[in-house]
Amino acid sequence: MLDALERKIEQFINELNDETTQKLYAQIPAGKRLRAALILKIAPHTLSSIKLAAIVELIHAASLLHDDVIDDAFMRRNKPSINASFGNKTAIMLGDILYSKGFYELCSIDTKVAQIISNAVTQLSLGEQADVVLSKKFNASKHDYMKMIYQKTASLIEASSEAAALLANKDRVVYRNYGRAIGMAFQIIDDILDITASSKQLGKPAMSDFVEGKTTLPYIYLYEALQENERSKLLSYHGKKLKEQQLAWIEAKFKEHGIIERCIHEAKALALEATLMMQQEGNESLQKIAQDMVDRDF
Amino acid sequence: MLDALERKIEQFINELNDETTQKLYAQIPAGKRLRAALILKIAPHTLSSIKLAAIVELIHAASLLHDDVIDDAFMRRNKPSINASFGNKTAIMLGDILYSKGFYELCSIDTKVAQIISNAVTQLSLGEQADVVLSKKFNASKHDYMKMIYQKTASLIEASSEAAALLANKDRVVYRNYGRAIGMAFQIIDDILDITASSKQLGKPAMSDFVEGKTTLPYIYLYEALQENERSKLLSYHGKKLKEQQLAWIEAKFKEHGIIERCIHEAKALALEATLMMQQEGNESLQKIAQDMVDRDF
Repeated sequence: MLDALERKIEQFINELNDETTQKLYAQIPAGKRLRAALILKIAPHTLSSIKLAAIVELIHAASLLHDDVIDDAFMRRNKPSINASFGNKTAIMLGDILYSKGFYELCSIDTKVAQIISNAVTQLSLGEQADVVLSKKFNASKHDYMKMIYQKTASLIEASSEAAALLANKDRVVYRNYGRAIGMAFQIIDDILDITASSKQLGKPAMSDFVEGKTTLPYIYLYEALQENERSKLLSYHGKKLKEQQLAWIEAKFKEHGIIERCIHEAKALALEATLMMQQEGNESLQKIAQDMVDRDF
Repeated sequence: MLDALERKIEQFINELNDETTQKLYAQIPAGKRLRAALILKIAPHTLSSIKLAAIVELIHAASLLHDDVIDDAFMRRNKPSINASFGNKTAIMLGDILYSKGFYELCSIDTKVAQIISNAVTQLSLGEQADVVLSKKFNASKHDYMKMIYQKTASLIEASSEAAALLANKDRVVYRNYGRAIGMAFQIIDDILDITASSKQLGKPAMSDFVEGKTTLPYIYLYEALQENERSKLLSYHGKKLKEQQLAWIEAKFKEHGIIERCIHEAKALALEATLMMQQEGNESLQKIAQDMVDRDF
C-alpha cells in the first residue's frame, strides 16, 4: 500500500519534468504520512484513493515548506529544513510548485473531492495567518486558539477523512468528525510536547512556542488559573527569550495547577470520541490511530 | 462587464470571512486586469466566465505577491508592495490564501477548465524558479530564456484564452496560440522597457534586471553580437551594481548593434501573429489588445 503511494508521489514529481524541483524534493524527509494512511485505511485501494493520498501528502509538504519560512524554523523531522539549507525563496517556490501540482491532479479525481481538499487548504492558509496574528500578543481566548488549530492543523486531516469516505461511499459526516477530532488532538499534543519534551527530543529549546509568542492551550489555562499579580508576571514573559529561572517558574505553576494533565485529558477526550466513532463503524485500524496518538509519554 | 468582475472578486474575498485578509487585500492595487479582459472578450458574459475571470485575477495577484518576495521588489504598480509594507511572511500567507481560494472556486466551473488553469499555475511556479536559477550566472541561451518567460508569464495568459474559448465553444487551439503569442510579446516588451524606460516611469533604476542577474533577451543578443574581449567585459558587469560609465557602455553597445530594435521587432512579430489569428476569427477587440501591447514608445 505505502509502496504504491510513494511511487505515485515520485511519479507526480517526475511529471514536473524539472531537475531543480526533483533535486530539492529529494531533500524533504518523507514524514509519517498520517493523512495518506488515513485515506488508505478508509477507502479501498484504487487508483483514485492512491492518487488522493499522494496529492494530500504533496499539499501537506507544500504547507510545511511555507510554514517553516513563516516560523523561521530551521529543523524539520530532525533534518535542516529546506529554508535553512537553500533559503526562504527556494522554499516558497518549491511550495508553490507542489501546491499547484497537487491542485492540478485533484481535478482528475472528483469535483466534490477537489472542493473538500482545496477548501481545507484555504482554511490551512487562513490558520497559518491567524497563528501569526495571535502571536503578536498574549492570547487568553480558548475560542480563538481552538479555531486557529482547527484551521491550521485539523482542517486538512478532516478533509482527508471526508474525501476518502466519499470515494468509499461511506458516511462522510462520521469520517469528517473523526478526522477533525484526531486533528485537534494531534495539535494539542504537539503543543503540550513543546513544554514537556526535552530539547533533544524536540530538536529545539523547550517552551519555544511561548518564547515565539504562541499562546497554546496550556498557557491559556495557566492564565485562567493564576492570581492577578502572577498573571502580570506571565504576560511579562510572553514572546521573550527567558532565563532558566523564569522557565522554571512557569513550569512550577503548570505543576501547581495541574495544567498539563488537564490538557492531556482534553486531547485524550478528543481521541476517545474519535475511537468511539470508529468502533461504531467497525474500523479497527482507525481506532488504533486515534489511540496511538494520545498513548505516549508526556 | 468589469463591474461584475470586481464584484465577483470582492465576493470571493468576503467569503473567506477573515478580517485580516480583507484588510490586506484592500491594499493591493487592481492592475490592468489583462487576463480577465481576455476571458471576457472571448467568452459570453455568463456566471461561469465572470467567475473564471475573477479566479484568474486572484491567482495572478497571488503569483505577484510571491514574485515580489522572491525578487525583493518593493514597488508594485507605483505603490509599495505588500512585502514592503507588511513583510515577506504576510505576503506569502496572503498569496497562499488567494491561490487556494482560486483553486477552490475553479472546481465549480468545469473540470477541463480547472486543469488548464491549474497546470498554468504549475508552469508559472516552475518559471519563477527557473528565473531565479538562470539569474545565478550570465545566461547566453535564448532557448532557456524563451522557455522561462513562457512558463513565468505566457502560460497563465495562454491558459486564460484557452479556458475562455472552451467555455465559449470556440477553437481552443487558436485562442491558446493567441494567448501564448501575446504573453511572450508582453514579457519581451517588459524586459525591453527595463532598459529603455526612465527610472521614473519604472519606479526603480533602469537596467535593474541585469544588475539583479537577469539575462533578458537584449543581453543575450548583445552577447552574441560582441567581440571576445567585449563579451568578457559584459560578463564582468553581470549581477553587479554598475557605475554610470559602465551602464553607458552597455547602452552604447545596444545602439551600435541595433539590439533594442531587433527585440522590439521580435515582440511586434509575435503581436502581428496574434493579430492575424484574430483577424481570421473576426475578433476585433482581441486584435486591438495585441496591437496596443506593442504600439508604444520605447
